[in-house]
Amino acid sequence: MFMLMVAVIQCTDRVGLVAAIANVMAINGMNILSMREHVELGSSMFFSRLELSGEAAADIITTQLQQVLPTDAIVQVNPLPQKRIAVLVTKEYHCLGDILLRHHFNTLGASVQCVIGNHALLGDICGRFGIPFHHVPHDGIGKEQFEQNLLTTLLAYQFDYIVLAKFMRILSPAFTAHFPLRIINIHHSFLPAFIGASPYKQAFDRGVKLIGATAHYVTSDLDEGPIIAQQIIPVNHNFTAKDMVHAGREIETAVLARALSLLLADRVFVHNNKTIVFE
Amino acid sequence: MFMLMVAVIQCTDRVGLVAAIANVMAINGMNILSMREHVELGSSMFFSRLELSGEAAADIITTQLQQVLPTDAIVQVNPLPQKRIAVLVTKEYHCLGDILLRHHFNTLGASVQCVIGNHALLGDICGRFGIPFHHVPHDGIGKEQFEQNLLTTLLAYQFDYIVLAKFMRILSPAFTAHFPLRIINIHHSFLPAFIGASPYKQAFDRGVKLIGATAHYVTSDLDEGPIIAQQIIPVNHNFTAKDMVHAGREIETAVLARALSLLLADRVFVHNNKTIVFE
Amino acid sequence: MFMLMVAVIQCTDRVGLVAAIANVMAINGMNILSMREHVELGSSMFFSRLELSGEAAADIITTQLQQVLPTDAIVQVNPLPQKRIAVLVTKEYHCLGDILLRHHFNTLGASVQCVIGNHALLGDICGRFGIPFHHVPHDGIGKEQFEQNLLTTLLAYQFDYIVLAKFMRILSPAFTAHFPLRIINIHHSFLPAFIGASPYKQAFDRGVKLIGATAHYVTSDLDEGPIIAQQIIPVNHNFTAKDMVHAGREIETAVLARALSLLLADRVFVHNNKTIVFE
Amino acid sequence: MFMLMVAVIQCTDRVGLVAAIANVMAINGMNILSMREHVELGSSMFFSRLELSGEAAADIITTQLQQVLPTDAIVQVNPLPQKRIAVLVTKEYHCLGDILLRHHFNTLGASVQCVIGNHALLGDICGRFGIPFHHVPHDGIGKEQFEQNLLTTLLAYQFDYIVLAKFMRILSPAFTAHFPLRIINIHHSFLPAFIGASPYKQAFDRGVKLIGATAHYVTSDLDEGPIIAQQIIPVNHNFTAKDMVHAGREIETAVLARALSLLLADRVFVHNNKTIVFE
Repeated sequence: MFMLMVAVIQCTDRVGLVAAIANVMAINGMNILSMREHVELGSSMFFSRLELSGEAAADIITTQLQQVLPTDAIVQVNPLPQKRIAVLVTKEYHCLGDILLRHHFNTLGASVQCVIGNHALLGDICGRFGIPFHHVPHDGIGKEQFEQNLLTTLLAYQFDYIVLAKFMRILSPAFTAHFPLRIINIHHSFLPAFIGASPYKQAFDRGVKLIGATAHYVTSDLDEGPIIAQQIIPVNHNFTAKDMVHAGREIETAVLARALSLLLADRVFVHNNKTIVFE
Repeated sequence: MFMLMVAVIQCTDRVGLVAAIANVMAINGMNILSMREHVELGSSMFFSRLELSGEAAADIITTQLQQVLPTDAIVQVNPLPQKRIAVLVTKEYHCLGDILLRHHFNTLGASVQCVIGNHALLGDICGRFGIPFHHVPHDGIGKEQFEQNLLTTLLAYQFDYIVLAKFMRILSPAFTAHFPLRIINIHHSFLPAFIGASPYKQAFDRGVKLIGATAHYVTSDLDEGPIIAQQIIPVNHNFTAKDMVHAGREIETAVLARALSLLLADRVFVHNNKTIVFE
Repeated sequence: MFMLMVAVIQCTDRVGLVAAIANVMAINGMNILSMREHVELGSSMFFSRLELSGEAAADIITTQLQQVLPTDAIVQVNPLPQKRIAVLVTKEYHCLGDILLRHHFNTLGASVQCVIGNHALLGDICGRFGIPFHHVPHDGIGKEQFEQNLLTTLLAYQFDYIVLAKFMRILSPAFTAHFPLRIINIHHSFLPAFIGASPYKQAFDRGVKLIGATAHYVTSDLDEGPIIAQQIIPVNHNFTAKDMVHAGREIETAVLARALSLLLADRVFVHNNKTIVFE
Repeated sequence: MFMLMVAVIQCTDRVGLVAAIANVMAINGMNILSMREHVELGSSMFFSRLELSGEAAADIITTQLQQVLPTDAIVQVNPLPQKRIAVLVTKEYHCLGDILLRHHFNTLGASVQCVIGNHALLGDICGRFGIPFHHVPHDGIGKEQFEQNLLTTLLAYQFDYIVLAKFMRILSPAFTAHFPLRIINIHHSFLPAFIGASPYKQAFDRGVKLIGATAHYVTSDLDEGPIIAQQIIPVNHNFTAKDMVHAGREIETAVLARALSLLLADRVFVHNNKTIVFE
């Protein structure tokens, strides 16, 4: 059956890689509609994403690619077209609402398995969209116990990524270690400016003329994970710190949506704490 | 000798093209540092740009590529690193000034062979940078004669492209036919809005909130050639039509500079009156 | 009681207007926190928006302002803080969904009275947010009858503005005449480029590098009403016409949200088919 | 004689200020074409900029304004239409070149009195535009001596502002104290991200997706002075640190030009280490 496929490949670079990959496609009668390729010169790593049309089976192509590529090659052909995500929230609705809307109308590119909030507030909106919501409170218990509860709740579901959609608790390295490169956060500043708490207050005090938002992978280092997408909007002297928060919400929503659309279409590679993004 | 090369290829698409190209590179020990590839689905045309490192000779690679590619293939390997341009101007200095500055400090990516003005005004600035300037007036003579004079002046030089840097005369199809896909214009609007004369006056009258500029190839259809780059800037009710002209100059300068940097690095293909731009 | 107020004023310009207005505020002990003023030079019209703090009554200030201003003055002090809107839709969810979310979480600055669709599709999402939805179909009846049905449905509600949130029927001048400067539309192009039908198809065919969206007042001239807000996003040769539609949705949502936030905060004046926007 | 004037006013806020100012204008038959006013709520400071038309004398209006305003009022009516600037540079040409071009074609809004470089490299381009250039080297002498030489050279000229157009030496607080709020710098990052040296290297290492530039007043705290303007451009994984430097040059040139156009039109106020900018 004729179909469209996506192949993503990551391995040590050497002469002849593109030829090897393209030969596999040609032998199997797959036409390369679009090919993106990047070599990270410092580390000699090769990254590629192909959009293909043809009738070959994904597992045959995967096997043949692995045979011709370096042994460290990570190959995914036709990855799960519909990824699954779990969403963590606190009280702010804007990113979650956007995700729920897109999910409801089948434009998210992922299935929302569940939403977990450390506050109960956003349970109502999840209910309106028929999405399971779990309230996992953090008050009155230690961080370790809170994260254990979070983990237990999460692991009742299957998911590819955890999306922190304005989740305002800092996750410990012990927790994030369970999900390497599988947690995505939206940070409310143009990182690395205004790392840490209250970035809009910091931005207001500094008198900046632009504020930004950053979607990034969560690693053990707070706010230091690989950046997927960033955008900014202009502000001026009329903006109070509260106005900046409001303006920031618009850009947070947009940047997280953009990052998810790239991630869920297998357009993002991570290497040396940076991303290669084939837009 | 180890060197960096650029290869650009355009031909009818078929299965196995990327493999064929990559095989040629592998056989010659050329490493593909970056590869951009695009298939225009409607017309089954294939476009590719490769950045390579290695020691092979450009003509050998060109010949080998032509042997394995479809007969309609247009192949350029290691195209002239320093293109040559001729610049046509009228009275406005901003685009010409930017080009002269970049040329003077070797950041243009091209050699400015000459500047021709239908007014004499900009001769002084060319003189300050040691660039030949020719005044080819249009007053008192017919368009045909004017264009004949222009042609004669131009053809005393060798150049790859003619850049219309705010040249305010409309060139006839007879003239443009001499230089197919070799004339670049900066148009002072976000095409196709405000085609024709006085776009800023039109924009002011319409009360738009953004104004733009468009760099495009010149074809026989006025303002209808393939678009290379476009940008906009915000305007508001405080802007008079004259203020819009001033604001527009900033964006015209930036867009033309951007288009030239893409063009001169062999990143622009033209097909069906549109461009494929590998940024 | 101490409170914040907004005053908006529009009248023929003459020397001393700002003094007259500011004197009224001073006499009543109102402090001017922010004042925006604009004189349209061509027509000598004066526009002003003031943010005030103090304890005076709005009707007293309104009366005193009218006494000192030209007879054609339109004065609104402390306008309805919560405007009411009716929303018209067809099948696309993105603008409506954004409006419903903001409304649900009290960040829209308006109360959504009802949603009317010429298709039934979006009734479900309205139901999830508890907003009345009316299906007013257009098939099998004439335009006049359709608009009569629309009018009857609308007039059962009280509202300040009608928002066309991707309503894909062209309203007749007879209909729009009922609501002068009270209908807001989101148009899926950077007006005046691509007026009329299928702007994304037009944009794709032209090979533009940016696509835009325009929020404007609806007048009897299709796509020719005063523009409130415009934004663009970059596109490239990889975008199919369908991809452009998808990309356009993001910007349509953002531009309509921006225009509504300005409109609902009394920051938009209309004069000579243009807007003055005090951002 | 009928003329256009600009008045800028800064003082402690109190009820009735706008009335008092506007009365002065009305009494003198001056029409207020445009008025911008802002009250900094935290500190109760009042800022205003008026564009006026009429025939009154500037000194009479200034005197009358000072009589009706608080004693701390700073009033400037019809400030020097052509400001004078001195420019400091090192080796990079792009900001200086842009300033020289605009100056040469009378669009800078200021007169360039002189250029001083700690390297001799940019003397040539100044010579081509007939602008005095002084080479004040820093090698082999202490910072104190270097700054003394700089000061001596500068003080041979009269100027309103010193523009650091990619001047790559850090000025001591002792030096900057001579010119409070009179030194403007272009910083090659989106402050406060990447304070200090090699911001593009820092940006490359962090893998950001946007790079920026910041024009700001120079105070005794390095990179901490009031911000006038900021802009960003997108970058991606294809950019080497060197590519980021090149891309950054475009935005540095644009941001400094923008900041100067605001500053030289008396649109910038400074208060509490932030700017109020009436664009």
